[in-house]
Amino acid sequence: MKLLRIGALGAEIPAVIDADGGMFAVTSLTDDIDGAFFASGGIDRVRQALAEGLLPRIEEAGRRIGAPVARPGKLVCVGLNYRDHAEETGAAVPKRPVIFMKDPSTVVGPHDQVLIPRGSVKTDWEVELAVVIGREARYLADPAAAAECIAGYAISNDVSERAFQLEYSPQWDLGKSCETFNPMGPWLVTPDEVGDPQTLGLRLAVNGAARQNGNTKNMIFDVAYLVRYLSQYMVLHPGDVINTGTPAGVALGLPGTPYLREGDAVELSIDGLGTQRQTFINA
Amino acid sequence: MKLLRIGALGAEIPAVIDADGGMFAVTSLTDDIDGAFFASGGIDRVRQALAEGLLPRIEEAGRRIGAPVARPGKLVCVGLNYRDHAEETGAAVPKRPVIFMKDPSTVVGPHDQVLIPRGSVKTDWEVELAVVIGREARYLADPAAAAECIAGYAISNDVSERAFQLEYSPQWDLGKSCETFNPMGPWLVTPDEVGDPQTLGLRLAVNGAARQNGNTKNMIFDVAYLVRYLSQYMVLHPGDVINTGTPAGVALGLPGTPYLREGDAVELSIDGLGTQRQTFINA
Repeated sequence: MKLLRIGALGAEIPAVIDADGGMFAVTSLTDDIDGAFFASGGIDRVRQALAEGLLPRIEEAGRRIGAPVARPGKLVCVGLNYRDHAEETGAAVPKRPVIFMKDPSTVVGPHDQVLIPRGSVKTDWEVELAVVIGREARYLADPAAAAECIAGYAISNDVSERAFQLEYSPQWDLGKSCETFNPMGPWLVTPDEVGDPQTLGLRLAVNGAARQNGNTKNMIFDVAYLVRYLSQYMVLHPGDVINTGTPAGVALGLPGTPYLREGDAVELSIDGLGTQRQTFINA
Repeated sequence: MKLLRIGALGAEIPAVIDADGGMFAVTSLTDDIDGAFFASGGIDRVRQALAEGLLPRIEEAGRRIGAPVARPGKLVCVGLNYRDHAEETGAAVPKRPVIFMKDPSTVVGPHDQVLIPRGSVKTDWEVELAVVIGREARYLADPAAAAECIAGYAISNDVSERAFQLEYSPQWDLGKSCETFNPMGPWLVTPDEVGDPQTLGLRLAVNGAARQNGNTKNMIFDVAYLVRYLSQYMVLHPGDVINTGTPAGVALGLPGTPYLREGDAVELSIDGLGTQRQTFINA
């Protein structure tokens, strides 16, 4: 089952796509897909209503797709979580997950324009598997308990400004939190439909040229490990999002560091999670 | 004018304290004190209703005080922003503000119990001037424009677990984002009542022993500078909170590093912004 939000920015309505690709409105069940929706068992309600044929069919008809989760409470990121990416950035393979945060208001739709910040010369891309929390996670005992807290998966582009991130201070959040810096979606895909989250191919291309081509099997810390780990240090709430790291192939690590310029088009895909495409423009 | 939220956790009602110390309910004007309240000119509405005598008087009567802002969209922190604190931690005085983030769900009331995380042996305190954003701040031209975006000021205790923050990875957010790690309040004090934010004494004591005694005049980057600086890299939204750094005197920098233990009581005050008192207990 795929959950999504369609319509103009700030006026999205919640919808679901079934196993046959049909799209249905879920406005009769919830105003939005957000933390309160997950906390109140919203996914189960949608699944049941879909099975009973109670939801009206709608057509996408070229409408904008928003991020699949409205107003995440926080956006936690894992740095250097693929061995090849750690190597390309010159960093040691970490012994513990490297955790930082992005401003959650950076989350935008999967095909929205992304703004290159004023003064930026090092705007970079990062395709990532995003995990959406569906149930409070606090001092979880084991990875099995962590899996129970996952509402689903989506694609994130963890857009990064490398000068702001790495040169302006030792803390990364500044270069991760610029306006529109986290396209997410197109859908939130439920765990039953995704299957094993550690066997997904991730790809990213810039202007048609392949740049990243990885697989979640190469994560240093896997999804269930990360959710359990984070739950020992912070409380994860329904609607929170975790970006689980990016494989090799970012501009920072490529010959000539081909950072993004106005007009560049970035396309991302992850097996089973769909495709994103953004055009970058100057802020 | 002082805005506050009183009542049980999750069921706070909004209130205001006037210049004479009288407390009045503002439930007729807003459901809560949050980003939407600030964005819609809520402070001006409260000020006018108070002047016209339209608000019903209420008594605090021992009720719990909540954080003065509900559900901050983000909680941005400035590290090493007092020269003496940078020195005590062994860090160089930064050339640019050091920016990191806390999970905004760490914000609790000023007198709520604070949880020492499981496995923690280095839980520390930090008294800070918190700035609450009242108007969208995006690429602000100058410090005067920044001042216009400030809804008011409050006390934050930027509670920190130093092993999680400094030893587990080079990124600090993990040790800043533990449950209950940001007591805030008791009030949001409007800028007209605070006056110059760069002349405020800050104090913190543990079990009655003075530990921090600083003044905002010793900030390396002042409040208006910080708001303008941040607005060049991220969009600040109404209801966002900025912790502007702590002066010397944290456990990390004291002889014997006297980190907090179960039963310790921490008391904080800032001139004109009131007093907080928390008891620390094991999670």
